[in-house]
Amino acid sequence: MPCNSEDFPVPCDRCQEELPGSETLEGEKSTVEVKSCCYVRYPDGAVRLRNPNIELMDQDILYHLALGSGSHDLQQMFGDVKFVCMGGTPKRMEQFANFIMDEIGYKLPAGTTLLDISQYSYRYSMYKVGPVLSISHGMGIPSVGILLHEVIKLMYHARVKDPVFFRLGTCGGIGLDGGQLVITDEAVDGMMRPYLELPVLGQLVQRPSKLDTDLAKELKSLSTQDDPFETHVGRTMCTYDFYEGQGRLDGAFCDYTEKEKLEFLHKIHQNNILNMEMESLAFAALTHHAGIRAAVICVTLLNRLNGDQVASSKEVMNEWQNRPQAIVARYIKKHMGMTGPAPRPPPPGPKTVVNSKKLKFVREESQSYE
Amino acid sequence: MPCNSEDFPVPCDRCQEELPGSETLEGEKSTVEVKSCCYVRYPDGAVRLRNPNIELMDQDILYHLALGSGSHDLQQMFGDVKFVCMGGTPKRMEQFANFIMDEIGYKLPAGTTLLDISQYSYRYSMYKVGPVLSISHGMGIPSVGILLHEVIKLMYHARVKDPVFFRLGTCGGIGLDGGQLVITDEAVDGMMRPYLELPVLGQLVQRPSKLDTDLAKELKSLSTQDDPFETHVGRTMCTYDFYEGQGRLDGAFCDYTEKEKLEFLHKIHQNNILNMEMESLAFAALTHHAGIRAAVICVTLLNRLNGDQVASSKEVMNEWQNRPQAIVARYIKKHMGMTGPAPRPPPPGPKTVVNSKKLKFVREESQSYE
Repeated sequence: MPCNSEDFPVPCDRCQEELPGSETLEGEKSTVEVKSCCYVRYPDGAVRLRNPNIELMDQDILYHLALGSGSHDLQQMFGDVKFVCMGGTPKRMEQFANFIMDEIGYKLPAGTTLLDISQYSYRYSMYKVGPVLSISHGMGIPSVGILLHEVIKLMYHARVKDPVFFRLGTCGGIGLDGGQLVITDEAVDGMMRPYLELPVLGQLVQRPSKLDTDLAKELKSLSTQDDPFETHVGRTMCTYDFYEGQGRLDGAFCDYTEKEKLEFLHKIHQNNILNMEMESLAFAALTHHAGIRAAVICVTLLNRLNGDQVASSKEVMNEWQNRPQAIVARYIKKHMGMTGPAPRPPPPGPKTVVNSKKLKFVREESQSYE
Repeated sequence: MPCNSEDFPVPCDRCQEELPGSETLEGEKSTVEVKSCCYVRYPDGAVRLRNPNIELMDQDILYHLALGSGSHDLQQMFGDVKFVCMGGTPKRMEQFANFIMDEIGYKLPAGTTLLDISQYSYRYSMYKVGPVLSISHGMGIPSVGILLHEVIKLMYHARVKDPVFFRLGTCGGIGLDGGQLVITDEAVDGMMRPYLELPVLGQLVQRPSKLDTDLAKELKSLSTQDDPFETHVGRTMCTYDFYEGQGRLDGAFCDYTEKEKLEFLHKIHQNNILNMEMESLAFAALTHHAGIRAAVICVTLLNRLNGDQVASSKEVMNEWQNRPQAIVARYIKKHMGMTGPAPRPPPPGPKTVVNSKKLKFVREESQSYE
C-alpha cells in the first residue's frame, strides 16, 4: 500500500525519498522485499506491522515478555521509547541499563529502583530507562527471533515512532585482536549467504539480512582517536553453532584438522568477514523486514586466526565489554540532544495495568509458554 | 576404531551386538554415521569424544557452564551421574531438581541446599541431585546445541558411563489437546527433513536426528491407565522460529492466511507429526552423534489445529508441566532399583576445586564469553 493511496493521502517524508519497489536475491528463490516505508510505518512514523491479524485480536499476549495489549497500557508504558538495546545475558543488560541511566543523567524518584519488566517470563529480562529499553536476548537466532517478533509488536502497540534497535555483543574477531569493535554492515550465514533462511509453512523463505549503512557509519564516526580501541565496519558471519559452526577445535565433535579450520577462517577473512557471532543474521533480517533502523556492534574477545581459547583477564574483558556500550551511549546522548542539561526525571508513575484480571492471565500464560 | 583393534583388545557388550557400519541419508548429501559404540565409548562404557583434540589440551574450559577440566575435579563431582535432564528455563529445572530429590528420597545434609553449579555463567542453570543432573537449555537449537557440546564433554571428563539424556518440555500439539504427552521417536525440521543441517567450514553437514526407540517405548510403558493424560509416541517438528516457523498468525509478520496455515498443519498431522517445539532436532542429532541414549518428552499446551492462543489457567498448566517430569521420575526410580529403601545420603563433600587459580580463570572466562 504505497503513499498517496486512500490509507495514506499524504506521502510521508521517507516515501518522498524512497519509492516503493522490490528486490530479489541473486540465484536463489526470492521473496519480495518492500522498501516503501508505508508498509511499515503509519504517516506519523509509528511502527506498522506487516501482519493484518494483530489489530483484529481482542488482546495480543507477548508471551515471552510477560506483557499483553489487553492487560497493560503499553502506549503509556513504552510510548516514549526511542532506542532498543539488546544483548545476551540478563546480567549484562541490567548493567547496561544502569550505565545508560548514569550516562543520560536519568534520575529515579527516591525509593525506587529499576525493575525487570519481564521477570515473570523467566526467559528475557527487560529494563526501561526513559527512552531506552535494555533487553537480554539469550543465545542464538531462535532466541533473538522470538524476542524481535514480540518487541516489534510491542513497538506497534505502544505506537513508538521510528525506534532504532541495537545489538551489543561479544564476538570472535577474524584478523582482529581482542578488544576491537566491529559494526556489522551485512550479516551472512555460515555459507556466506546474506539472508536468513526460514521454513514457513513448508516453504523456504529468505529475508535479506541488511543493516542500516548510514547508522553504521554514524556509529563509527562516534569513536574517536582517544578511544583505546579501533572501530571497524564490515561483514559478520552469524552461525547456528558455537563449536563446529564456528570451526572450533574444542567442541564435543571435530571432524576437521587445524589446517582445514585455518584455511576456512583465512578464506572468510579475505571475504571481509571481520567477526563471528550467533545472532546478527536474525537481528538484521527481522529489523530490515520490519523497516526498523538497526545496528550490530560487537567487541572481539580474541583473534580466531590465532586460536580458539580466550586468555585475557576478567578485568580486561570487562573493560572491553563496555566499549560497544560506550559507542551506543554516545549515539543516544547525541540524538537526545544532550549537549544541554540532563533530561527531566520521569513524571509520577500513572497506572499502567489496565486490567488486573487480564494481567494475571498474561503472567500465567507467559510463565507456562516455552 | 572398531573393537578388537589394539585400542580395544576386548570387544564390549555393545559391539558384540552391533557391528561398525555406516548409514547415508536418502537423496541428500550424506555424512557417514558411525554405529559402533567403540567410537563413542571406552571399553568400560565411559563416554568417548569424537574429537581427538580434547585429550591433548592442558585444560578444557566449558565456558557456558563455568566449569573446567583443569580447575575442577569433574570426575569426583559428576562421575556418578546417570541421568541428564534438560528443559527450557532455570526456574523449571530448579523445580525439577527439587521434585526428583523428593521422588528418589535423596536427603541433603543438614544446613545445605541445592546450588546452581553454573551460576557464574549467567546463561544456563545446573543442579545435581545424586545421579541426576537438571539443566536449563534456553530456547532454540543454538542454545541447546552449545549446552550439549559442553555437557557431552562434561560426561567425558567425568568418565560417566552410559548416561541417558532427557529433554522435558512443552509444545504445541498437532491433533492433540492440551495436557497430553508426546515422546518423540524422530525429530524433523520445518521442511520435514529428519536431520540437523549445519554449515561446518562452509560445507553443509547433516546429522540424523534419531532418538532411542527402545527408550521411547520404555517411557511410554511407564504411563499407566490411571494417569489423567494420554502418552503418545510420534514425530516432532522442530522449528527455528516460534511465530512464522510454526505457522502462527500472531507474530510481527504474517504473509499467509488462516486457511493456508491450517492446510499446512493438517498436512504435517497426516505425516504423523504430533507436536511442534524448538529444540528436539539438535537434541536428537547431537546425542545420536555422541552415541548417547536420549528421549524427548513434551506436554502439549494446546491443539494447534484449533488455534494459536493458550487459554488454560495457570493451575491447569502447572499440573500439565509436571507430567513429563512424572514419567521421567518413574524411569529414574526404576533404573535406580528403587523398589527398596531410598538411596543413601551423599558422603561428606570432598574437595572438588583442584586449582583455585584456574577456577578464578574459568569463572572469569565464563562470565565474559557470549
